[in-house]
Amino acid sequence: MLELRLVQGSLLKKVLESIKDLVNDANFDCSSTGFSLQAMDSSHVALVALLLRSEGFEHYRCDRNMSMGMNLGNMSKMLKCAGNDDIITIKGDDGSDTVTFMFESPTQDKIADFEMKLMDIDSEHLGIPEAEYHAIVRMPSAEFARICKDLASIGDTVVISVTKEGVKFSTRGDIGTANIVLRQNTTVDKPEDATVIEMNEPVSLTFALRYMNSFTKATPLSNTVTISLSSDLPVVVEYKIAEMGYVRFYLAPKIEEDEDETKPET
Amino acid sequence: MLELRLVQGSLLKKVLESIKDLVNDANFDCSSTGFSLQAMDSSHVALVALLLRSEGFEHYRCDRNMSMGMNLGNMSKMLKCAGNDDIITIKGDDGSDTVTFMFESPTQDKIADFEMKLMDIDSEHLGIPEAEYHAIVRMPSAEFARICKDLASIGDTVVISVTKEGVKFSTRGDIGTANIVLRQNTTVDKPEDATVIEMNEPVSLTFALRYMNSFTKATPLSNTVTISLSSDLPVVVEYKIAEMGYVRFYLAPKIEEDEDETKPET
Amino acid sequence: MLELRLVQGSLLKKVLESIKDLVNDANFDCSSTGFSLQAMDSSHVALVALLLRSEGFEHYRCDRNMSMGMNLGNMSKMLKCAGNDDIITIKGDDGSDTVTFMFESPTQDKIADFEMKLMDIDSEHLGIPEAEYHAIVRMPSAEFARICKDLASIGDTVVISVTKEGVKFSTRGDIGTANIVLRQNTTVDKPEDATVIEMNEPVSLTFALRYMNSFTKATPLSNTVTISLSSDLPVVVEYKIAEMGYVRFYLAPKIEEDEDETKPET
Repeated sequence: MLELRLVQGSLLKKVLESIKDLVNDANFDCSSTGFSLQAMDSSHVALVALLLRSEGFEHYRCDRNMSMGMNLGNMSKMLKCAGNDDIITIKGDDGSDTVTFMFESPTQDKIADFEMKLMDIDSEHLGIPEAEYHAIVRMPSAEFARICKDLASIGDTVVISVTKEGVKFSTRGDIGTANIVLRQNTTVDKPEDATVIEMNEPVSLTFALRYMNSFTKATPLSNTVTISLSSDLPVVVEYKIAEMGYVRFYLAPKIEEDEDETKPET
Repeated sequence: MLELRLVQGSLLKKVLESIKDLVNDANFDCSSTGFSLQAMDSSHVALVALLLRSEGFEHYRCDRNMSMGMNLGNMSKMLKCAGNDDIITIKGDDGSDTVTFMFESPTQDKIADFEMKLMDIDSEHLGIPEAEYHAIVRMPSAEFARICKDLASIGDTVVISVTKEGVKFSTRGDIGTANIVLRQNTTVDKPEDATVIEMNEPVSLTFALRYMNSFTKATPLSNTVTISLSSDLPVVVEYKIAEMGYVRFYLAPKIEEDEDETKPET
Repeated sequence: MLELRLVQGSLLKKVLESIKDLVNDANFDCSSTGFSLQAMDSSHVALVALLLRSEGFEHYRCDRNMSMGMNLGNMSKMLKCAGNDDIITIKGDDGSDTVTFMFESPTQDKIADFEMKLMDIDSEHLGIPEAEYHAIVRMPSAEFARICKDLASIGDTVVISVTKEGVKFSTRGDIGTANIVLRQNTTVDKPEDATVIEMNEPVSLTFALRYMNSFTKATPLSNTVTISLSSDLPVVVEYKIAEMGYVRFYLAPKIEEDEDETKPET
């Protein structure tokens, strides 16, 4: 039996909005430590990893590990029916082919039960090793979303280049080129407005803007985003979820053969 | 001759918005007691009844009973040209084939006259007898609108069930089921936030959500909605209009043959 | 070499939004006195004239006259990437086939360079003589926009008639007619709310609402609009740009042969 009570139900609504366009169907895994998900996007290019730790729930009961296959579009339809101040409880029974989302209004005058059919989904759980990154950029999530949206009006890919002084986002398209430079800036009034760069060595990597823009759907989850880059690893774009977990997006860099820095392969 | 001057012209704008999607053409009836309308929706399933009592107008002159056939889409186009603070005057002459809507800005610096062609519309006026209802639910209109919209994302029909403790709205669709329960609640800060149930006997009736959602277009007219239910009568969904009248929607329940409570017809 | 630094960069964003739907491609002309544009709309009916005087720029360097052909849709895409508080600098080199727009955030933490390809555009510069107008109406720009939008829901053309008492906007369509009268009104709290009429002789002219509505895209540039009318000249619809210039739209009146005031041509 499973019963997970989340007082700040709006978090779960935001989590679904952040991943439902990228992933159609996925298994949610419940264990004593938390509620998690790992899934490839439908074109098998990007990977999403979600974790909501058990400590973040007001009540967390998970008698034994369960994996529940859900259609994220349908789940999102149901969660949209929860008010932003509602308490959300996820309920499941062993062997049942349904999951129930219960929404309680703060005054307890309105109680809704939404029961959704579960699906059988084949999935393999990838081990994601902890890695050392060449550069880690922490910046305001709204600024990152703005930059990805702006660049997508000019080109299809973004080159992210990190030096000690700052991070540069560049693109090129039919109508011209664009370069946006953010300087490292830690002397701000609010810590979430800072742009902080931890760099071991400079990196310059190219990514599809379509995926980056998809990742920024998670912007409402957190004021800051962390972008971890290495020349031989997928980028990690991470949004922390309050005190209880994260949504992480992984995307492999594009190999651009016509870039100046590319050496001939002879 | 007809001259009806409504200081709070935005009321008439909201009335039109609430019924124009349901009814294409209708006769507005003017008499010494008020300005009214009764019309079936275009698929002849739902009935709309509107009353604006003469006392609610700053000036009300109606020399003899008149019936004016109007296209509600066109009328709505014209009323949208009135500012929300404008005074609206409806003017008509006996035997004329037009009606004039005059909009005066509060400062009187802007005066607009919109003249609309009238239509000949056959209509029969149905007598709607006063009836006793098994249960009457009064609730916040925005809550009712939210529930109808939410359930329509899951299913096509809503079962409304009233007991002394509360009212339950249920639906069922391909992706699952939903039940929303509102408890009777009269101890609220603002009277319009109350959910009040008057019940003679329990009822459980099924309605098409498409129509219910159409009725909720009247939500801006009133903070509360009253839903009157009897097992052998159409439901009445009523929105009061300030001190001067109402918009009422009537809809016959669906007969669900596969419901548990349905008795065999032998 | 060209370098024009505009502290209130949002002005340039608004200028582009006001003309990009009317004109596809146009030459921007730079001289020591200012940055200007003159172009016919794509159907060669309306004329747009823009002037930003050099004094309005924080820094204005233009070594010799330059004409830069730009696609306004592409330019608008790039300017949309500037923040509303950004400083915008336009940079060009003699003989270069590109122009660069630089956007600096107020804190200087974010610097963007957008480089756009220039085009060769044939254009003839029309001399627009200063003229005497029969009537000049100055009114709130939002009110003018509202009237044009409202009338377009009823008809295709607007008759603008000016007398000493006021200005009347009329239209006629399939569903009826509309007349909106604004009275001269100079006793207002804020000067930009005034409707002021300077009249030498009464005029009554007919224009296509489609173009008028297009001109009102410039409404965010100024709280007031000035409409200059003469029976034998195109109307001028002018929006002032802060202290530094204007956008002016010119449109020839329609000749309505079935109007009462039209004399037979024998």
